Amino acid sequence: MAAEIVNPRSDSSTDQDGGAEPHNSFDPAFALHRGGKMAVQATVPVRDKDDLSLAYTPGVARVCTAIAEQPELVHDYTWKSSVVAVVTDGTAVLGLGDIGPEASLPVMEGKAILFKQFGGVDAVPIALDCTDADEIVETVVRLAPSFGGVNLEDISAPRCFEIERRLQERLDIPVFHDDQHGTAVVTLAALRNAARLTGRGLGDLRAVISGAGAAGVAIARMLVEAGIGDVAVADRKGVVSLDRDDLTPVKRELAEFTNKAGLTGSLERALEGADVFIGVSGGTVPEGAVASMAEGAFVFAMANPNPEVHPDVAHKYAAVVATGRSDFPNQINNVLAFPGIFAGALQVRASRITKGMKLAAAEALAAVVGDDLAADYVIPSPFDERVAPAVTAAVAAAARADGVARR
Amino acid sequence: MAAEIVNPRSDSSTDQDGGAEPHNSFDPAFALHRGGKMAVQATVPVRDKDDLSLAYTPGVARVCTAIAEQPELVHDYTWKSSVVAVVTDGTAVLGLGDIGPEASLPVMEGKAILFKQFGGVDAVPIALDCTDADEIVETVVRLAPSFGGVNLEDISAPRCFEIERRLQERLDIPVFHDDQHGTAVVTLAALRNAARLTGRGLGDLRAVISGAGAAGVAIARMLVEAGIGDVAVADRKGVVSLDRDDLTPVKRELAEFTNKAGLTGSLERALEGADVFIGVSGGTVPEGAVASMAEGAFVFAMANPNPEVHPDVAHKYAAVVATGRSDFPNQINNVLAFPGIFAGALQVRASRITKGMKLAAAEALAAVVGDDLAADYVIPSPFDERVAPAVTAAVAAAARADGVARR
Repeated sequence: MAAEIVNPRSDSSTDQDGGAEPHNSFDPAFALHRGGKMAVQATVPVRDKDDLSLAYTPGVARVCTAIAEQPELVHDYTWKSSVVAVVTDGTAVLGLGDIGPEASLPVMEGKAILFKQFGGVDAVPIALDCTDADEIVETVVRLAPSFGGVNLEDISAPRCFEIERRLQERLDIPVFHDDQHGTAVVTLAALRNAARLTGRGLGDLRAVISGAGAAGVAIARMLVEAGIGDVAVADRKGVVSLDRDDLTPVKRELAEFTNKAGLTGSLERALEGADVFIGVSGGTVPEGAVASMAEGAFVFAMANPNPEVHPDVAHKYAAVVATGRSDFPNQINNVLAFPGIFAGALQVRASRITKGMKLAAAEALAAVVGDDLAADYVIPSPFDERVAPAVTAAVAAAARADGVARR
Repeated sequence: MAAEIVNPRSDSSTDQDGGAEPHNSFDPAFALHRGGKMAVQATVPVRDKDDLSLAYTPGVARVCTAIAEQPELVHDYTWKSSVVAVVTDGTAVLGLGDIGPEASLPVMEGKAILFKQFGGVDAVPIALDCTDADEIVETVVRLAPSFGGVNLEDISAPRCFEIERRLQERLDIPVFHDDQHGTAVVTLAALRNAARLTGRGLGDLRAVISGAGAAGVAIARMLVEAGIGDVAVADRKGVVSLDRDDLTPVKRELAEFTNKAGLTGSLERALEGADVFIGVSGGTVPEGAVASMAEGAFVFAMANPNPEVHPDVAHKYAAVVATGRSDFPNQINNVLAFPGIFAGALQVRASRITKGMKLAAAEALAAVVGDDLAADYVIPSPFDERVAPAVTAAVAAAARADGVARR
């Protein structure tokens, strides 16, 4: 087979153009990324004429004809039901902002290999050269026949909300903006366990979220759906509340379903007496504000790489501390959620990802911790092999319960 | 790693819905296609926190930043330069016609695994839910940042010509409609060897092509570029000639650069005294017409599964006979061309696929036959391991010679 002989990515016989070696070529991240991080492989043999006559013409024509006559067979006889498009427009990539589609590709490839490694889900990076919401929606609708699901990634707010909603209205496959819902699922799981550790229910807690972007809005919504006592969200201008006249439509809606207490003013003021701080802003919170929180508070300072409150400071006042970083305990990492959520949805050919499926994912994720629950262990490690199967099974069961499963 | 535990495609624990088993489930093509024919794999390890911190955050951010600052680095540090989009709208799938995007997926997956097996090229099926040329062009332009090349497939004529031209004008990566150029390259290679076998030059030959669709037009153009003596193309209404008033713009252009002899009338009449018959029509040619060809003629009856002339009949009159079928000698099979053409183009990061690259591919392919040339061996087997490396090297060299290589 020629595959071993010819490989365009491994070719190094030709001179690189002058600019191809970055100054930081000793950075191991560059060595690891050379040639990309993923490949396609055949899962059926193509060794001889007989193989070719089944996998390609004439055999393939019979399979095509069967799908043309009975469209749902596409799920049985192609990779559609195991492959997710990881779609971005490159406008909100990590903390780097709007770096464009090409520069976002290493993140999308990273996401794709995490899908595979942790969830057994095939994923293909699709970085789009357009940022208009209408154009993104049309483009994804047009390429959707090839995919079993769409994971939206690193698309800036507020377009991300509209794009996700409109795509899900038009497609009968799951559309999931991971920056919103993946983060929300893992945050809720950690919060459930923190509450259990300290003998409280979610209904006993008042939370304050710093950041009203994709993650902040989704976390607030999910905490309300899960029965939080109260939650207020602060943007750069302070608490999002109905008395403000500068709110976008998304923040106005947010104000309507959060902040039962009717807080107004600064984040710091909202934190006085609060039980939970959730940081998804990238800003900083002064130590005094953390000190003013209620006894036994939880501080989830998830900004990367610099948490809103340094964990050492947070620990002086809080009962449970979590961050987004792998070098501190309790890492709130989306990889705990999205592989299992899509694996579960694809397994039952769900047409969408419901509230119930997300809440079930959070519960299953929290339950993995079990009896080992401790202040520095409210959320499992991304490398805990129990995580993806637990989330997958819970999501699949919830899809059936919610009536969106197709098998 | 959870990958071995959770795999949505291998799940068979749940009942299939009633329609999921086709009546022809004993057909081995269906067994082979179950779950699809391809998968994605990670090419870098994600075993622990350290791996994750390089392949994903925070390490990946440094790679993204480098690409944002120096865009050409996307070729070095992502899989862009080794992955091709296999794009269709499902309107002209094999001989099945307009069966739609989902039903075309088995063919696109087949194509993708042939790219990988024969050329070491990663390929992703993108079956589009639109057939309007403007929409297809816009969609492919938007998703192009993720890919190093675009292989158009099974898009009906005449839209396929316009779509390819407009895409290549707008993109700086190769755009290649395989039904046109792959077929033309392999046909030219076989014709070169048939001419060599019989001691003639291409300039000595008068050819007649049956079929003025994607393949027929491309073959005619390539034979002219290669220096054929004369070539006429016939559609259902007879020879495409300038005196006809029913020609589409594409056929008018075809009439302008073919048919120097000024033939008019039926295919059968054009075949009288012709040296070469090339069938890409799906029609049939009566034995009498084959008998009327010149002494030592070549009959390439490439319709699948039913050649325009049965090889047994053709052999009564012709010196060389080729078909599109694997169960006869001299199979004109596109898989001899497209994997190496894209592998060569990607290897040097060509911005397009030029005439010179296609002619070089045909020459390299013909040369593989070498001293073993015989009437039943004018074209190599798809499984000849020399083919893809030879085509790859020739195409890469031609890209450099034509000034479209970027490394």
